Amino acid sequence: MAPLNVAMIGYGFMGKAHSNAFAQVGHFYPGVREVRRRVVCGRNRAGLEALARAWEWDEVETDWRHAVTRPDIDLVDICTPNYLHAEMAIAAAEAGKMVLCEKPLANNLAEAEAMAEAAARVPNFVWFNYRRVPAVVLARRLLEQGRLGRIYQYRAQYLQQWGPDPTRPRNWKMSKQTAGSGVNGDLNSHLIDTAMMLLGPIRELSATVETFLPEKADPANPGHTYRIDIDDAVLVQARFASGVLGSFEATRFATGYLNDNNFAVHGERGMLEFHFEDMNRIEYTDAGDDPEVRGRRKVVAPALGPPGDPHFWKTGHPIGYEHTFISSLADFLVGLESGDPARPTFEDGLAVQRVLEAVEASADQRRWVETGL
Amino acid sequence: MAPLNVAMIGYGFMGKAHSNAFAQVGHFYPGVREVRRRVVCGRNRAGLEALARAWEWDEVETDWRHAVTRPDIDLVDICTPNYLHAEMAIAAAEAGKMVLCEKPLANNLAEAEAMAEAAARVPNFVWFNYRRVPAVVLARRLLEQGRLGRIYQYRAQYLQQWGPDPTRPRNWKMSKQTAGSGVNGDLNSHLIDTAMMLLGPIRELSATVETFLPEKADPANPGHTYRIDIDDAVLVQARFASGVLGSFEATRFATGYLNDNNFAVHGERGMLEFHFEDMNRIEYTDAGDDPEVRGRRKVVAPALGPPGDPHFWKTGHPIGYEHTFISSLADFLVGLESGDPARPTFEDGLAVQRVLEAVEASADQRRWVETGL
Amino acid sequence: MAPLNVAMIGYGFMGKAHSNAFAQVGHFYPGVREVRRRVVCGRNRAGLEALARAWEWDEVETDWRHAVTRPDIDLVDICTPNYLHAEMAIAAAEAGKMVLCEKPLANNLAEAEAMAEAAARVPNFVWFNYRRVPAVVLARRLLEQGRLGRIYQYRAQYLQQWGPDPTRPRNWKMSKQTAGSGVNGDLNSHLIDTAMMLLGPIRELSATVETFLPEKADPANPGHTYRIDIDDAVLVQARFASGVLGSFEATRFATGYLNDNNFAVHGERGMLEFHFEDMNRIEYTDAGDDPEVRGRRKVVAPALGPPGDPHFWKTGHPIGYEHTFISSLADFLVGLESGDPARPTFEDGLAVQRVLEAVEASADQRRWVETGL
Amino acid sequence: MAPLNVAMIGYGFMGKAHSNAFAQVGHFYPGVREVRRRVVCGRNRAGLEALARAWEWDEVETDWRHAVTRPDIDLVDICTPNYLHAEMAIAAAEAGKMVLCEKPLANNLAEAEAMAEAAARVPNFVWFNYRRVPAVVLARRLLEQGRLGRIYQYRAQYLQQWGPDPTRPRNWKMSKQTAGSGVNGDLNSHLIDTAMMLLGPIRELSATVETFLPEKADPANPGHTYRIDIDDAVLVQARFASGVLGSFEATRFATGYLNDNNFAVHGERGMLEFHFEDMNRIEYTDAGDDPEVRGRRKVVAPALGPPGDPHFWKTGHPIGYEHTFISSLADFLVGLESGDPARPTFEDGLAVQRVLEAVEASADQRRWVETGL
Repeated sequence: MAPLNVAMIGYGFMGKAHSNAFAQVGHFYPGVREVRRRVVCGRNRAGLEALARAWEWDEVETDWRHAVTRPDIDLVDICTPNYLHAEMAIAAAEAGKMVLCEKPLANNLAEAEAMAEAAARVPNFVWFNYRRVPAVVLARRLLEQGRLGRIYQYRAQYLQQWGPDPTRPRNWKMSKQTAGSGVNGDLNSHLIDTAMMLLGPIRELSATVETFLPEKADPANPGHTYRIDIDDAVLVQARFASGVLGSFEATRFATGYLNDNNFAVHGERGMLEFHFEDMNRIEYTDAGDDPEVRGRRKVVAPALGPPGDPHFWKTGHPIGYEHTFISSLADFLVGLESGDPARPTFEDGLAVQRVLEAVEASADQRRWVETGL
Repeated sequence: MAPLNVAMIGYGFMGKAHSNAFAQVGHFYPGVREVRRRVVCGRNRAGLEALARAWEWDEVETDWRHAVTRPDIDLVDICTPNYLHAEMAIAAAEAGKMVLCEKPLANNLAEAEAMAEAAARVPNFVWFNYRRVPAVVLARRLLEQGRLGRIYQYRAQYLQQWGPDPTRPRNWKMSKQTAGSGVNGDLNSHLIDTAMMLLGPIRELSATVETFLPEKADPANPGHTYRIDIDDAVLVQARFASGVLGSFEATRFATGYLNDNNFAVHGERGMLEFHFEDMNRIEYTDAGDDPEVRGRRKVVAPALGPPGDPHFWKTGHPIGYEHTFISSLADFLVGLESGDPARPTFEDGLAVQRVLEAVEASADQRRWVETGL
Repeated sequence: MAPLNVAMIGYGFMGKAHSNAFAQVGHFYPGVREVRRRVVCGRNRAGLEALARAWEWDEVETDWRHAVTRPDIDLVDICTPNYLHAEMAIAAAEAGKMVLCEKPLANNLAEAEAMAEAAARVPNFVWFNYRRVPAVVLARRLLEQGRLGRIYQYRAQYLQQWGPDPTRPRNWKMSKQTAGSGVNGDLNSHLIDTAMMLLGPIRELSATVETFLPEKADPANPGHTYRIDIDDAVLVQARFASGVLGSFEATRFATGYLNDNNFAVHGERGMLEFHFEDMNRIEYTDAGDDPEVRGRRKVVAPALGPPGDPHFWKTGHPIGYEHTFISSLADFLVGLESGDPARPTFEDGLAVQRVLEAVEASADQRRWVETGL
Repeated sequence: MAPLNVAMIGYGFMGKAHSNAFAQVGHFYPGVREVRRRVVCGRNRAGLEALARAWEWDEVETDWRHAVTRPDIDLVDICTPNYLHAEMAIAAAEAGKMVLCEKPLANNLAEAEAMAEAAARVPNFVWFNYRRVPAVVLARRLLEQGRLGRIYQYRAQYLQQWGPDPTRPRNWKMSKQTAGSGVNGDLNSHLIDTAMMLLGPIRELSATVETFLPEKADPANPGHTYRIDIDDAVLVQARFASGVLGSFEATRFATGYLNDNNFAVHGERGMLEFHFEDMNRIEYTDAGDDPEVRGRRKVVAPALGPPGDPHFWKTGHPIGYEHTFISSLADFLVGLESGDPARPTFEDGLAVQRVLEAVEASADQRRWVETGL
């Protein structure tokens, strides 16, 4: 089959993570359709060329509108600041291209709805990469096996600490206009996507949103500050459609935690707990164990590969963050062939956006709101 | 000085914990006033006699009203089911006795107010024993030293797992009439007391309360169930008067956790985290550390003794749960002499009760409420 | 039955730990014979009186020879520096008294042999208290149940860090004359006793002994140093009679570790691991678990009480170091009544001493030696 | 500069790990000389072709002798069973090729000496990949900074559990003829290489070697067993030339541990500890910290990239085992250009082999032996 020609828009941290996924997917998933790194787009030609050289992209382009309509392009991958997602994804879909988009899907619900509608006609996918941490995949499988029985509670936190750091350069993540929101879209979106993958839709919620430092020193402009109009922390109490009670916290002010995305599931027959800080293991309790030796188990998750080679890196040889992108891409490519599209699709990204919007509404109105899911 | 003659009402698990504290306080705090185990009261004479024999109480009594007015009694210690606290504490205070009372102070706010008023005339104390975990004392000292700078967030959880256990015998903790509430009074009260000790009053909150199993099998009555009218889990979002953002969770449905009372404090200059499962240590991050070697530290807390012998059990030789009661009692006795009454007093217990009442009101009305603090 | 009248010789850290055990044993083990704290002996009257006051000893004595022959004394408990054990224990046994002795049993093998011989006629016991950590008791039970199948390897470490501390006062533990050895007797003796309790006798070994700082600053004598003639660290490779391969390390130079006494047992069907730093839990792996959820389990050990009340402090409510002494004493008292003497006896202490002596011989000769066990 | 044309011999687990390193090194270290995957050699053409397809090797060859002398080949990479290393490496070096070789360098000391001699004329390198775990690199840097002061003790373990697994297929690692030794060469070699990188040469040692199951069931041949003539476990006591006391353990019989390569360094001013199970962090104690907050720190190691882009994957985003190979290769390539050859060279591999040989001699003679280093 002909290779899939990719145009990627964006070349920051995610541009590297995606480049690596495009380069590596065929190595770890040898059966998937070949992917060709055709063109990388962005505004800064020098930056683009450095990335293209290091990661073997055939070409660079500074006009994304041209790139997404080129006849030699099959797939458009978007890893730009959030506020650009909608326009780009819709243009690509309208040009008949497959569309992959970084999370959160959009700056707001209206955009997300338009994107999901436009993308309905083409294969589409959102990079909620934490779904593909092997330990999260294991947790999902154990839940699907019914090992926990009825689920009572779900608790998830995404803890980062860079919020108060005065040396951190100002960037697009610090403005509502460019990011849509703060931790709600950046971190809470991951929590919500994982939660709904594991336990189904969230029906209603009550949220609090906080900006600890509305005015922040600008390291590029000594003596000056800039206003911050996005959220530094979000707390959510939620009820899933299944009746499960949920609680969520996302924050950039959790001093002590670089990047801990964690969750726990408590059920009548057991418990599961995950911390991204220890990403190759999961904690599991089987409530039915002999009480004399019952306890939380540290289970090492197998690294996931293609059928027939499930353990490319043998279990016990840790894999890293980058594999969540490689495996996400593999899912998308497998879904293309199988006719069973990989999740999360733009529809899934839209569902997350509904929850994010409900978080803002609830925080604003200081009461419970329905998500519409 | 003459010994303090004690009448203790109640002889269950807390009756043992208090007996041990009365027996041991003079050993670990040799300077304090002598305490004499005069009389233990309750309804079941056989049970009382067994406790009295094991723990060397001089006498047993089955009429608590008589016990609390005996002229030879100086101090009444109450460790009965919650619904009895108010009546007993008020009677004791009116008889001019010092009063110590198990937590939560009362079944509801009205009772707690009456108790605080009655006890105002006598030395009084509430057994929020987790204040006196050495690692919690260390956390408090580090906060008072200002090591964390401005505090942004506080997070606390009390996780137990016995809720769904079908073999668990029905007891007074499972009924609103006798317990006032479920985990709100039983577990959340500890979280709230510790939080307000560390960070001052909670001003407003938004809470969710859940009963997962409103009908439960009665192991003593095979084939029959009983109704449960108390809360199995409580979630709280809160704002302290100081502006700190708080989140709390108390639950008996956290499969995997026997008894983990934990908290984390995130500030601009550092972090503190405590888990009762690892009760002799605290995690501490100093954000000002050399970045090359910055990380969460496991700090072993010194066991606390009297002035001049701070490390009765040398640091590194773990002490247990029982010492939280011994040291609480020592605080009370030291406060008696010094004229600076030990905390938490009934006034502190009343403040906790205001928060617990606000939790119920908020959950009921599905909106934020003020605590009045 | 008449109470057992105790004379305790020594009043340092162990004097306190034993006083507590004598005071508490009846509380946690209500069925055992009553113990009476009759007389505490030592050289410093003021120190003795302070201890006697705090811990309610009836009398103090500065002449231990008189104390151990008093007709009103039934049991002599020895917690003096090692070099005094033999003389005191033999005198007490010859006076027909029961004898309890701190570990290591003696300064050397010859003394230990004489002690075991003298004590053969009276009830006797050695305070190897780590046997009675609840998690160690659990490990032993799981081994006896055969859960690990054939045992391949045993590994144990006792890590402390105070060796290089220049502020540490000089004391009897730093001299061969008074302590017999350094970490070999002080720490390795615990490792060896636990190992042989769990897996039977050690048949042969190869050891290395190290003194890192043969000259140390004397904080009491600024500008002066003193010579250290004892071992700071010991490494042992060993073979048990059962064929198990063992390795041991005891050191006071393990910067970072206050007091971590740990061991691991690897067998064909599972693994057990213990760390005194987390003394209420044990790690357990069942190699027969479903591979999908196999992993090391953190099992909380139940606090051990008398028959019928196994969980005085409910599981999940940590107990501390002091309970290892209380339970050791309870074992001794139960053994008195049952006719099945509690272990470890002086014979067990002598077996440990044979291993310690073999460690020194092996280190000296730089080759493997037989222990004679 | 012209790309380096590589011939790799071997296509098992290490063949994949090396292929990945060759494919990725230019992505993460964009400045290094380009590497071209020219030819992969081995005996099984089908296996070779599958690897070549998945990892984009230009060609396959079944005659390694031809491959290593082809004029279009610059570098020969050897990842075959140990017993083939010497012949292949010497042939490649004699043909003037650069040589990279998997560890351990050889089946025995004589081979290693011949290899080091032959390779002296060409760039050479041994894949002791654990040197390049970022946390190990951090440990090394902290040691070089003198943060630990005088070092007293070093302790290292390599714990695997597959030894007793009856379903494990028989392979070349289970025979002295093909592997040279068991865990001594397979696992202990890693421990020794890391130790000597961190602390310099080991001068003398005393070792024990054990084969727990000399006869093992052959899963491919039900009802039959095969003899095992290699070591299942190795214990070593050692003294470094610097005077540091070392202890080492390598075993495949550590039930409960999939792959834990760990070490601890104790010095007068601090401690470092590493566990490969938690490969992105290191524990560090600064003995000079304020005692009130002193404790073992969990320090997250930065992922290492080229100068100017040290954190390709931002700190807090774990990287995996595969990066140890990528960075090792980058070191070699940088060393080529700089004229300061990367370590470990064949000379370093030979030094490790001297220690491994001393381990066998000591175990055989049951006494201490010099390593000759």
